[in-house]
Amino acid sequence: MTDSATPGAGTANGDRTGDVVIALDVGGTGMKCALVRPDGRTLHTERHHTRAERGPEAVAASILDVAEGLAGKARANGLIPVAVGLAVPGVVDETTGRAVWSANLGFRDVPLREMVGTRLGLPAALGHDVRVGGIAEARLGAGQGTRHVLFLAIGTGIAAAHVVDGSAFAGAHGAAGELGHVVVRPDGPPCGCGRLGCLEAVASAASVGRRYTALTGIPATAAEVVARAVGGEQNATQVWRETIDALADGLTIAQALYDTEVVVLGGGLAEAGADLLDPLGTALRQRLTFQTEPRLLRAALGDEAGCLGAALLALDALNTT
Amino acid sequence: MTDSATPGAGTANGDRTGDVVIALDVGGTGMKCALVRPDGRTLHTERHHTRAERGPEAVAASILDVAEGLAGKARANGLIPVAVGLAVPGVVDETTGRAVWSANLGFRDVPLREMVGTRLGLPAALGHDVRVGGIAEARLGAGQGTRHVLFLAIGTGIAAAHVVDGSAFAGAHGAAGELGHVVVRPDGPPCGCGRLGCLEAVASAASVGRRYTALTGIPATAAEVVARAVGGEQNATQVWRETIDALADGLTIAQALYDTEVVVLGGGLAEAGADLLDPLGTALRQRLTFQTEPRLLRAALGDEAGCLGAALLALDALNTT
Repeated sequence: MTDSATPGAGTANGDRTGDVVIALDVGGTGMKCALVRPDGRTLHTERHHTRAERGPEAVAASILDVAEGLAGKARANGLIPVAVGLAVPGVVDETTGRAVWSANLGFRDVPLREMVGTRLGLPAALGHDVRVGGIAEARLGAGQGTRHVLFLAIGTGIAAAHVVDGSAFAGAHGAAGELGHVVVRPDGPPCGCGRLGCLEAVASAASVGRRYTALTGIPATAAEVVARAVGGEQNATQVWRETIDALADGLTIAQALYDTEVVVLGGGLAEAGADLLDPLGTALRQRLTFQTEPRLLRAALGDEAGCLGAALLALDALNTT
Repeated sequence: MTDSATPGAGTANGDRTGDVVIALDVGGTGMKCALVRPDGRTLHTERHHTRAERGPEAVAASILDVAEGLAGKARANGLIPVAVGLAVPGVVDETTGRAVWSANLGFRDVPLREMVGTRLGLPAALGHDVRVGGIAEARLGAGQGTRHVLFLAIGTGIAAAHVVDGSAFAGAHGAAGELGHVVVRPDGPPCGCGRLGCLEAVASAASVGRRYTALTGIPATAAEVVARAVGGEQNATQVWRETIDALADGLTIAQALYDTEVVVLGGGLAEAGADLLDPLGTALRQRLTFQTEPRLLRAALGDEAGCLGAALLALDALNTT
């Protein structure tokens, strides 16, 4: 990640005129940014460090600066910025456009939509990072063509987005889809939320590494645990088996409540590909009784899903106002 | 329940002209039927035995006969039947209008919407009994004025309806909201669905009675168990405590995934009123961390919610075609 644009990687030719949406996906570590055409094509991407340790005011100021910089870049290339879409983690109220609560970024009830809209003089939308990622995967990615999609992001944490007909449900307080905080092991490891045995505390990429290290004393990433499990190493196999079982328990609950056609698996752990999807599919099948089994698919848009989804949300806002 | 109309109880004066919807809520034991005005007022009610033991063909034939009888009654009173709404339990596909699967009624993929629409020559809608009950409670009952409502029906079984802006989510295969089949006690009692420790197997009205009997050898209904628990009887207190804990675990999961403003509790167990709502509210509060606590309310429409909801579904279909 750099603080400069990567036009070589992100700027396509032949789209030098017309409307674009400015999109930012702000995470605890980095901001993924893009100029996106109304049809979902990305014309330009750039990445910046978030430097969250500077505090929420400084992060918010950087978001506005970066967004303004993107607008300038668009205009310099003869493009017309028509809207700005922003995605942040935590509890996000899409209706009021406020970042209600975010552990990573320190936000507490920050009216980000209004701030960025005012600064740029453009219609703006604020979304939850996983929910907009789910929108992007449902409309443009692995879930394309299916009406009922569950997007499950398994990274440092675990969160889900329930997407029906291309829209994600935010809930009454911006906290729907928190499958990571469903207790699957009542006597399990402590979770950051204060409870024991949440799905996130057992099966997030961070937890997989942590649990292997606790068992063996050997530091390892989730990817390394998966590789060792595939290679037949006993401790890694045990940790991975427990991870699959916990994820299957979580998805069984999600299927009982949401009844989707497709589950799209994203985030770092989904890089495991078939080593995740195959055993998870088998474990899920063993648990479902009268429910219809959803298809498990690997996310198609990688870490650009959030940025694309932020752009889609901004376009939706534009089309309904 | 009788097989004849109860006009004294159900027919109001002063509404002898105008449009009505024919509504039937078909359960394993009885059919609740009504003529409902477009504004939700009930003009006439009647009840019939389902006699499910006669088999699905006979039940379907009775449904059509009863619906036709209601249409005739409406016309005889100078009213104009404009649509017919039907609610049945089990797995219901609202989109195709088919009763996909119903243990109680023996239905296997029966195109009930088309059957009743053709027989009566009217626009028809088919809904899931708990989902239409949820629609009615959200629009006309305890959830009135709130956008995000969870309706939890605790009777012989347990099922939920997630209602947003007055519409219930059916899921991709008509099986959303099955909170009764979320495992809350992995080593718990066997559930009818084939798993162990589903919420329904621990906390339905039927299970409460069954668990008390297993503990004491004394047959008892859920209402009797609650009364004895309130009276301080030790075994009843234990069973009721376990019931409250299981329901709180279930609602904590539902809140994590749906994030609603309000939970409306209906079905037989909700008759316990404050003896259910007060301890359940406390137990739920103890489990929630960052999530916003939903308000717990007792259902307002009693056992007429399904019938009213079937009418609302039919009116919705009328207004969108």
